[in-house]
Amino acid sequence: MKKYLKHDEWCIIEEGFKPELNRVSESIFSIGNGRMGQRANFEENYTGDTLQGSYVAGVYYPDKTKVGWWKNGYPEYFAKVLNATNWIGIDVEISNTSLDLAKCKVKKFRRVLNMKEGYLERSFEATMKDGKKLKIKATRFCSIVEDEVGAIKYSITPINFSGAISVTPYLNGDVRNEDANWDEDGSFWTPIDTKVKRRQAYVLTETKKTNYQVATGMKFGIHKNNQELVFKSSKIKTGLFVGSAVAIPVKKGDRIDVYKYAAVLSSENHEKEDLLEECAARVKAAYQTGFDTLLKNQKIAWGKKWEDSDITIEGDIEAQQGIRFNIFHLNQTFTGVDARLNIGPKGFTGEKYGGSTYWDTEAYCLPFYLSTADQKVARNLLIYRYKHLQKAIENAGKLGFKDGAALYPMVTMNGEECHNEWEITFEEIHRNGAIAYAIYDYINYTDDKDYLIDYGLEVLIAIARFWSQRVHFSNLKGQYVMHGVTGPNEYDNNVNNNWYTNYIAVWCMRYAATALSYVKENDAKKYAKLAKRIKFNELEELENWANICDNMFFPEDKELGVFLQADGFLDKELRPASSIPKEETPIHENWSWDRILRSCFIKQADVLQGLYFFEDHFDVPTIERNFQFYEPMTVHESSLSPCIHVILAAKIGNYDKAYEMYLRTSRLDLDDYNNDTDDGLHITSMAGTWLSVVKGMGGMRVKNGALHFNPFLPEKWNAIGFKIQFRGSTIQVKMNKTGTTLQNLSTQPVTVYLNDIPQQIPARKAILVEV
Amino acid sequence: MKKYLKHDEWCIIEEGFKPELNRVSESIFSIGNGRMGQRANFEENYTGDTLQGSYVAGVYYPDKTKVGWWKNGYPEYFAKVLNATNWIGIDVEISNTSLDLAKCKVKKFRRVLNMKEGYLERSFEATMKDGKKLKIKATRFCSIVEDEVGAIKYSITPINFSGAISVTPYLNGDVRNEDANWDEDGSFWTPIDTKVKRRQAYVLTETKKTNYQVATGMKFGIHKNNQELVFKSSKIKTGLFVGSAVAIPVKKGDRIDVYKYAAVLSSENHEKEDLLEECAARVKAAYQTGFDTLLKNQKIAWGKKWEDSDITIEGDIEAQQGIRFNIFHLNQTFTGVDARLNIGPKGFTGEKYGGSTYWDTEAYCLPFYLSTADQKVARNLLIYRYKHLQKAIENAGKLGFKDGAALYPMVTMNGEECHNEWEITFEEIHRNGAIAYAIYDYINYTDDKDYLIDYGLEVLIAIARFWSQRVHFSNLKGQYVMHGVTGPNEYDNNVNNNWYTNYIAVWCMRYAATALSYVKENDAKKYAKLAKRIKFNELEELENWANICDNMFFPEDKELGVFLQADGFLDKELRPASSIPKEETPIHENWSWDRILRSCFIKQADVLQGLYFFEDHFDVPTIERNFQFYEPMTVHESSLSPCIHVILAAKIGNYDKAYEMYLRTSRLDLDDYNNDTDDGLHITSMAGTWLSVVKGMGGMRVKNGALHFNPFLPEKWNAIGFKIQFRGSTIQVKMNKTGTTLQNLSTQPVTVYLNDIPQQIPARKAILVEV
Repeated sequence: MKKYLKHDEWCIIEEGFKPELNRVSESIFSIGNGRMGQRANFEENYTGDTLQGSYVAGVYYPDKTKVGWWKNGYPEYFAKVLNATNWIGIDVEISNTSLDLAKCKVKKFRRVLNMKEGYLERSFEATMKDGKKLKIKATRFCSIVEDEVGAIKYSITPINFSGAISVTPYLNGDVRNEDANWDEDGSFWTPIDTKVKRRQAYVLTETKKTNYQVATGMKFGIHKNNQELVFKSSKIKTGLFVGSAVAIPVKKGDRIDVYKYAAVLSSENHEKEDLLEECAARVKAAYQTGFDTLLKNQKIAWGKKWEDSDITIEGDIEAQQGIRFNIFHLNQTFTGVDARLNIGPKGFTGEKYGGSTYWDTEAYCLPFYLSTADQKVARNLLIYRYKHLQKAIENAGKLGFKDGAALYPMVTMNGEECHNEWEITFEEIHRNGAIAYAIYDYINYTDDKDYLIDYGLEVLIAIARFWSQRVHFSNLKGQYVMHGVTGPNEYDNNVNNNWYTNYIAVWCMRYAATALSYVKENDAKKYAKLAKRIKFNELEELENWANICDNMFFPEDKELGVFLQADGFLDKELRPASSIPKEETPIHENWSWDRILRSCFIKQADVLQGLYFFEDHFDVPTIERNFQFYEPMTVHESSLSPCIHVILAAKIGNYDKAYEMYLRTSRLDLDDYNNDTDDGLHITSMAGTWLSVVKGMGGMRVKNGALHFNPFLPEKWNAIGFKIQFRGSTIQVKMNKTGTTLQNLSTQPVTVYLNDIPQQIPARKAILVEV
Repeated sequence: MKKYLKHDEWCIIEEGFKPELNRVSESIFSIGNGRMGQRANFEENYTGDTLQGSYVAGVYYPDKTKVGWWKNGYPEYFAKVLNATNWIGIDVEISNTSLDLAKCKVKKFRRVLNMKEGYLERSFEATMKDGKKLKIKATRFCSIVEDEVGAIKYSITPINFSGAISVTPYLNGDVRNEDANWDEDGSFWTPIDTKVKRRQAYVLTETKKTNYQVATGMKFGIHKNNQELVFKSSKIKTGLFVGSAVAIPVKKGDRIDVYKYAAVLSSENHEKEDLLEECAARVKAAYQTGFDTLLKNQKIAWGKKWEDSDITIEGDIEAQQGIRFNIFHLNQTFTGVDARLNIGPKGFTGEKYGGSTYWDTEAYCLPFYLSTADQKVARNLLIYRYKHLQKAIENAGKLGFKDGAALYPMVTMNGEECHNEWEITFEEIHRNGAIAYAIYDYINYTDDKDYLIDYGLEVLIAIARFWSQRVHFSNLKGQYVMHGVTGPNEYDNNVNNNWYTNYIAVWCMRYAATALSYVKENDAKKYAKLAKRIKFNELEELENWANICDNMFFPEDKELGVFLQADGFLDKELRPASSIPKEETPIHENWSWDRILRSCFIKQADVLQGLYFFEDHFDVPTIERNFQFYEPMTVHESSLSPCIHVILAAKIGNYDKAYEMYLRTSRLDLDDYNNDTDDGLHITSMAGTWLSVVKGMGGMRVKNGALHFNPFLPEKWNAIGFKIQFRGSTIQVKMNKTGTTLQNLSTQPVTVYLNDIPQQIPARKAILVEV
């Protein structure tokens, strides 16, 4: 837990240079545009502690799997997010001494992430060893308009000396990952080509094994006191380090502005042979457009993003800053323009975990993009999984499943499994359910039923087939059971009959059958074609699914009126998480693994995750009983835990608990709650914060094609505002002490339910419903 | 499965050179003496496929733990058995060409392991590229009389040429392990010193991190046609390769005998500064004694070993060879003279697994040494664990146990845990029970109750304390339960209430209490001292144990009349192992891990292991019902499985099953049953074969201080004979078609029970009880 950042509605502000927190700040102040991303490393040389990170979407290396003891079925590799060519570098030298914040006196250091306009600014005054003082201001951004372009304005002012300043804008392809399993000592790139011109440079490198090529280019100009400078430069080319050194004579008080324009292109988006050429074209175009215009366009584009996705919280600036920080990073990570991309757990802010896709995407992130972006964005997230269906079928095949059954991977980059703990890889199979649920969620929200016909049904059948093979009939119980699974609560491994998994499995089979009826009825031809292609034996398979669904075992305790997390749960020693001594928390850092497993303590919503997904299947007292039973045993040691509890607590009217839970999620990274922000942000859990506000405090649901709100306003706050895109309409919701205002920003009337009462809102009108 | 070795009562014989089986033969023909061991690598240069292995007891390297995902509580290192300085090497050169079986025509290749006399012999004729033919015969052994000494006689006869033969006896300390986790690329030794003289050489190396020093020395002599040769030599010293090259003029038909004497000394047994000197002294003494005398002494010593431990099987030469092979290797691996040593799963035959001690020692090996060797040998195996008690207490402490509770490691070299799979390391805790059981077993066999006073009780209390903390009270059941364990059947992980573990836990607490009464009664002073030292709160702790024992939950099914392997076992799909398609066996190679876990299939005796240990607690029908229930589901994919089933099948009179199971154990390595003998032999399971014959077919038990036999003779065999050391008496048992002969070889009368009828056998007399 750290509290070193200034509170501001729209900006993240760090004041004073704190080398010991540099990695944390590098994560927090990261910039990105869905296609590329950059940690807040310094432009100038820095010999202090830093995690260098420049990432290119979709480019990875299959690092050799690292396990102690091989288990049959483990994947061969682990997809690693790669640190790519450094495009931000600008070395500064004065009297042959490199400007290096680790070796200067630093004053007035200030780092600002302007979330409203989408850029990073850093300024400071440095006193060199020899007493020379200079002032630096650096501004940079990854353009969300031209998503292969980044731009930097780096301003240098000598405060107390005249003489020469040497600046060297450069690219450096000789980069490593800090962490690597086995291979290559973290060096995952092969050099292909480099070029240097007077004010341009290019690096073309290729990933080992996967053979992605990435071209990085830069062009720069220099202004002195706002006048373009004509300069000579010395070209530098050492291995994959390419740049131009320019010596600039300066007088005290002069201002040197270095404008550096960079482009990062990958062979995922261009023919390899065109890469350098295309890269040069983008670099030159950016140079011609100029920094100010690029930045202006950036501000306009971010303005539009905020227009769609902003949440306002009045009366609590910390909360306001927290929620915007989360929305900002979600929008930086995934823009939805490319169905090959997904939402990595660290986004573009670190190299940890590797792989880009977890069930987080479907369970936590999808609703954010559904409500705040064009429908295509969410649809692309579904298409991503559709494209991986054959790999998921192969994956299930490796585990002994057949006849087109699909098991989606726990972690993946390209559809292949990358995780290697048996209790997760083979057993945390509820992820398959989340992928089916996302299809339901998308269609429920958008009414885009055509998606079922063209893509959804095929995925749903493959998933239903998996479940139908994964259960088995217990002669003892006379019911179907599911053994050897790990639920969302990873603090209870390899259990039998995890209620959540059993429930979602049955739901999947039923939903697949419903979807099938719909498709058959609405496009019999396409259905017939699909059925033939996937060898679907309709009669037999449907009967089998129905039989399983009708005879599935669900662990529950009738007396307590609760569903049981798994067989034997009530045999555990049940006690509240509050009974754990403070010095033993978080338990995952302080207790041995077996002790955690044996305990009743819950890492994140498990039974409650099911009640969240399938809220309408249960009455409020049932939800309440389960919440009261499980929440006290929940340690929330997953960043994905609190948000679900906010929503359910709000549902059952436990607003204090909802607010308490909200406080644990909104500033997780900003305050480095778990002391692990140094290696990257928790991008997917940021969506959970959004969910907390909109589904929790706003009580937003979609039922029978209509938007519902059941708002509550935390006492400490004056007002909450957010905007929802829904089937072509835009609804602005404002909740304050007086009541709730629903504003229809669209050109058509819309009916919205407020506390279950329908409200007709004419086009461009608002209604206020008082408390 | 391979069947390439000749059948012989006393020898293992390979005929014909089979490079593709070389690693398998290198394992099978290994020699050792409990202090050092050597795979059957060739003396001369060999560029073909080989696993070089020369091992020194107690010398290991703590290789960095390799895990995919760290779990709290994992050990930091994995103790690795080290390949040490090569002392067997003798290079042979003719016309500057190295003799290398990978590059010659090889005829009449023959490898013989003479188990009766304890040496390895190899002979062949080689035709070099240039047509020169020569005959080689090499004999070598690790002395069991001087256990730091090895000797080689290497005879060379030029068949079709005269000229010069160059021989270079050498030592080479520049050796690696084939397999290493992370560190050092398999190179675990630091050079300390080397010396070369005309006919001597020395290498002193030190292990990295653990800093064991090993001195290896050699001295050689050469005879030509039985005459000692005076020779000049060229000393060679390249890094850690030291030797002397001798050019010998030869005529066709001459015989050159190279006698090489080596000594291997470790700093475990000598002061570091004396190592080289002591090594030289041993080398010289061996040289002076001479090969023939050393070999004669070896034969005498092995004669004595066989005298004590031989088993004869008449009418089945394969079975005879198999059982002797197992006994031979057990005696090569552990001699019991040093309580710091133990029985590694691969002995001195390979580097796989690392660590030396598993629960195999207590559960499977102890009875062999109890019955065939001096009582001290078995006692030293117990003392080994006594010495590790503090480490076991620390180990339990790491997992959150306190107040002197001990958890012995799953795998260890020095008392510290070396294994790193959570479901094993933290959960396969029944090993603790086996360590207590061994104390019981030893005392039951030997009547050495003093052991309890001086060592046993302290270990038993620490183990009982562990169990008392590891269980918890289930409010649901109103009984104590034990969650999150893995039983001996590792194909069912992280289960609740594994019957075997619950049973042995309760037994441990009860036995500790009984032992405590005994010690208190018989040596109140020592008891009081111990109780004070370990802060034993007698009243409270004993009451707690008794309470747990009286209220422990044991899963069972009354209707079926069987104990349940664990909670939920009957929920599994129960089907016999015979229903698994042949091409899918062994399942651990063909099924994904989760599928194995969900299945009912059992790797090795689990409930049945308990019925074996505690046979007298159950009536025969109970044992029979459980055997009939579990054995059909058992896949015996652990080499430790069949032996327990032989014994129980014999117990319930299912002799066909007993014999069927016996066939799966006795020639496991000789016939390379599981295709994994290439990287070493399954030493600990060899004890299981001995158990199968003596406790299975012989029906040997010790009850109330008396030996019992309940023999059965497999139909295919004519006779079985074995000898048992028991409390100062030696009993020779012979079972044939006529009946059972019990011969008392001791100078005192002894009462032995045959089929529960007491038989008084006078000193030096035999009785025959007809069938």
